[in-house]
Amino acid sequence: METPKTAGPHVVIIGAGFGGLEAAKHLANKPVHVTVIDRTNYHLFQPLLYQVATAALSPADIAGPVRGILGKYENIEVILAEVQAVDVVARIVRTGESEIHYDYLIVATGARHSYFGHEEWEKLAPGLKSLEDAVEIRRRILMAFEFAEKTSDPAAQAAAMNFVVIGGGPTGVEMAGAIAEISRETLARDFRHIDPSTARVILVEGEKRVLSSFPEDLSASARRQLEDLGVEVMTGVHAEKLNEKGLEVAGKFIPCRVKIWAAGNTASFVGKTLGVPVDRVGRVIVQDDLTIPDHPEVQVIGDLANFSGSKDGKPLPGVSPVAIQQGRHAAHNILHMIAGAKPQRFYYWDKGSMATIGRNKAVADLNFMHISGFPAWLAWLFIHVLFLVGFRNRIAVLFQWAWAYLTFNKGARLITRNFQAEQRPLG
Amino acid sequence: METPKTAGPHVVIIGAGFGGLEAAKHLANKPVHVTVIDRTNYHLFQPLLYQVATAALSPADIAGPVRGILGKYENIEVILAEVQAVDVVARIVRTGESEIHYDYLIVATGARHSYFGHEEWEKLAPGLKSLEDAVEIRRRILMAFEFAEKTSDPAAQAAAMNFVVIGGGPTGVEMAGAIAEISRETLARDFRHIDPSTARVILVEGEKRVLSSFPEDLSASARRQLEDLGVEVMTGVHAEKLNEKGLEVAGKFIPCRVKIWAAGNTASFVGKTLGVPVDRVGRVIVQDDLTIPDHPEVQVIGDLANFSGSKDGKPLPGVSPVAIQQGRHAAHNILHMIAGAKPQRFYYWDKGSMATIGRNKAVADLNFMHISGFPAWLAWLFIHVLFLVGFRNRIAVLFQWAWAYLTFNKGARLITRNFQAEQRPLG
Repeated sequence: METPKTAGPHVVIIGAGFGGLEAAKHLANKPVHVTVIDRTNYHLFQPLLYQVATAALSPADIAGPVRGILGKYENIEVILAEVQAVDVVARIVRTGESEIHYDYLIVATGARHSYFGHEEWEKLAPGLKSLEDAVEIRRRILMAFEFAEKTSDPAAQAAAMNFVVIGGGPTGVEMAGAIAEISRETLARDFRHIDPSTARVILVEGEKRVLSSFPEDLSASARRQLEDLGVEVMTGVHAEKLNEKGLEVAGKFIPCRVKIWAAGNTASFVGKTLGVPVDRVGRVIVQDDLTIPDHPEVQVIGDLANFSGSKDGKPLPGVSPVAIQQGRHAAHNILHMIAGAKPQRFYYWDKGSMATIGRNKAVADLNFMHISGFPAWLAWLFIHVLFLVGFRNRIAVLFQWAWAYLTFNKGARLITRNFQAEQRPLG
Repeated sequence: METPKTAGPHVVIIGAGFGGLEAAKHLANKPVHVTVIDRTNYHLFQPLLYQVATAALSPADIAGPVRGILGKYENIEVILAEVQAVDVVARIVRTGESEIHYDYLIVATGARHSYFGHEEWEKLAPGLKSLEDAVEIRRRILMAFEFAEKTSDPAAQAAAMNFVVIGGGPTGVEMAGAIAEISRETLARDFRHIDPSTARVILVEGEKRVLSSFPEDLSASARRQLEDLGVEVMTGVHAEKLNEKGLEVAGKFIPCRVKIWAAGNTASFVGKTLGVPVDRVGRVIVQDDLTIPDHPEVQVIGDLANFSGSKDGKPLPGVSPVAIQQGRHAAHNILHMIAGAKPQRFYYWDKGSMATIGRNKAVADLNFMHISGFPAWLAWLFIHVLFLVGFRNRIAVLFQWAWAYLTFNKGARLITRNFQAEQRPLG
C-alpha cells in the first residue's frame, strides 16, 4: 500500500456494518487517517434483509456502496478485502493480499448464523445474514410454489407448500409473517393448479414464547398477530433431524421443502485472532470502555463484542442501535487517546426495540410503553426508513412499500440463478 | 399435468420474451387454453439490460414476474420449465419433466450471444443476454477498479483500468458509453490511489463503422458522441487471441482485465428440433405467414425466426418491435385458423431504430428523419419507459434515472458474489 495521504495516526476499521460505518463517519475530517476494510463493497441494512428474501425489495434498495457513503471524506480510504487475522502485538491486520499497520484498531466484523454444531444443516436451512443468503432464500420460496404447480404427486405438492421457519426471534417472526403474506396476497392469483393461500407457514421456537427478549405482553401480541396471518406458532419445541424432505419437531415429522434458519448466531472468527477471551458464541469480552485487556488501541464493537458493563450485567443484544452507539463511542475514544486522555466508559442508551410481523402488524417496546398492531407498525416503518443509509434508498424503499401496500404486489419476485449454473443450454 | 380448465384448443407458447408475451396477451380471454413455458419466472426488458450491467438499474427494475403479468387471465397458465425439444409430428413439447401436447404452437425462444466457434472466449469476455450475465459484468467492472486501487504493480493497474467492448452494434455502443460515464462521473471521488477518470474504454468493431445497421450519418454521429465521452473507437478491426491478460486487435496486444462481448448472436437450439431448415446462425426460416412448411399449426417468431418476406428480402433484424408485431400476428393467425381461415401474410411496420450512448447522447433513425444528441436521447428515454412492462417498473426506472441524471450517481453499484462462493469464512 502507498503511504496514507493525510497526516496523523492510522485508524483501521474492520467491517462496514452499522458499527464500523458510524465510527468512520465520526472520524471523518479529523486529524487521523482512516482505512475501512470490508469484504463486500456495500453497507448492508440488515434489518430489512428479510424483505429481500421475501421479494418485497431489491438488493440495491437496502445496500449502499461503501465508497459512495465515505468517498467524500478525504481522510478515509476503503479497501475491499477479507481480513484473515489481527496481530495485536505487531499492530498489523492481515488480509490475503497484504498487511496493514495500524495505530488504532476498531474490529466490527459482526456475526453469522450458527447451527449449534449441526453445520450440515446450513445447506438444508439457509440463514439470513448476507444479500446472497436473501436471494437464495427468495429463490427457494418462489421455486417451491413453481414446483407445487407442476408436480402431480400430492404428497410432494403438500411438502412444497409447507414453509418452516426455525427460530422465533425478530428475524424468524418477520420471515414467517412475510411468507404468509406472500402466499395469501401476492401470489393468490398466479397459479392454476394450486391455491397459494393454502400454504402452511410454521414457526418453531425453542423458548416458551416468540420474541423472548421482549416483554411478555408483546410476545403474546406478536403470537396473536402471526396467527391472524395464518402462521402456525410452535413454542417450547426444537427442530430435530433436518433432511431434504422435512424436519422433526417434538418427535413429529413435518414434510417440508423450504426450511429457513433464524435460530442463532456465532461471532466472526476475526475476534478469536485477537488472543483475548471470547464467550460461548465467539464474542470478544470487552472492557467497559470497549477496549481489550492490555491493548487500549484495540476496540471491539457491535455483534462481535460481549459487553456486560450494563446495568443488569447481561451482554448487550446484537442489534443495530448497540453497534451504532458503540461505533460512535469507539471513534471518540480514539480522539481522546490521541489527545492524551484515557478511553471512557461506554453507556448504552436503550431506546427500546421493535419487530414487524406484516402489513399493519408489529410490536414495539418503547420502555415507557408497549405498543402493538398499526401504531407499532407505523413506528417501525418510520424508524426503518429514517435510518436507511442514503436519501436515494429512502425514496426507493418508500416507493416500493407504498406500491406493495396499495396493490399487495411485490415487485422483486425474481428467481435468479446461481451464476455458474448459467452455463446450461438455452431453452 | 391436469387437463386445462378452460375449453378450446390448446395453444403452447415457448418463451416469455417480447414476442411470446405479446402473443399470450392477444390470446387472453379468447376461446383457447394457453400455456406459456419459460425457463425463467420473469419477462426481461432486454433493451435496458446494459443498465443493470453498468449499475444504473437493479434486476427487478427491468424484469417482471411472468405470473404477475399474465395471472389475471384465467385462460392462460404459466409453466417454469426448460424446453428440450419439440416433436412437430406428435405435436408435443418436451421439457425435462413432462410432455405437453399442443394444438397450436408458437416458438419464441430467442437468441444468445455467439463466439463464432471460439466458445472458450465466453468465460473471458461474457456477453449480455440474461440478468445473470448483467450482474456478472457489473461485478467484473466494479472489481477491476477495486483491484486497481489495491495493486502496487503499475502494469496490472493499467490493465485493470482498460475496458474493451467487442462489437459496435447498439449493445456494444451502449455498454462502452455507460462504462465511460461510470468512470468519469460516478466513481470519480471514490478512490484514493487511482483516478477512475483515466480509465480507457475501447470499442472494437469489425465493420467500417459502428451501428452498421443504421444510416451512415448516424453512425458517424454515434462515433463522435462516443469520442466525446472519451471512448476510443476502433473500426474495421477484429478481436483476436483473447486471454486473461488482454486481447490482440489488428496485430497489437491491448492489456485489459475486463472484456465484454457484444459481437454476435446465435439462435436458441429449440429451433433446430423443429426439423425444418435453419440459417447460418440457427434461425428457423419461416414462411411469409410465420408458419413452418407443412405445419401451419407451428409458428416461429422474434429473434428465433428468419423472416425474409419483407421488401428488401433481407431477414428482419433481431429487435423487440419485430418480435412484438410477430407475436401479435401469430396470435391472430391462430384465431383465424380456429375460425377455419388460413394464416395470413406478416408485414413488418418499421418505425425506425435508436441507440443510446450516454447522458443526453443518442441517435435515432425515424425513417422520415435522422436525429442525434439530446432530442434523440429524450425520444429514447420516452420510448423505453413507455414500453417497460408494468406501471411499477416505469415509476421505479424513472426515479432511478432522474436521480442518476441529477446526481451522476448510480445506485446499484453492488458487487454480489457467486452464491456458492458464500461458503467462505466471515471476515
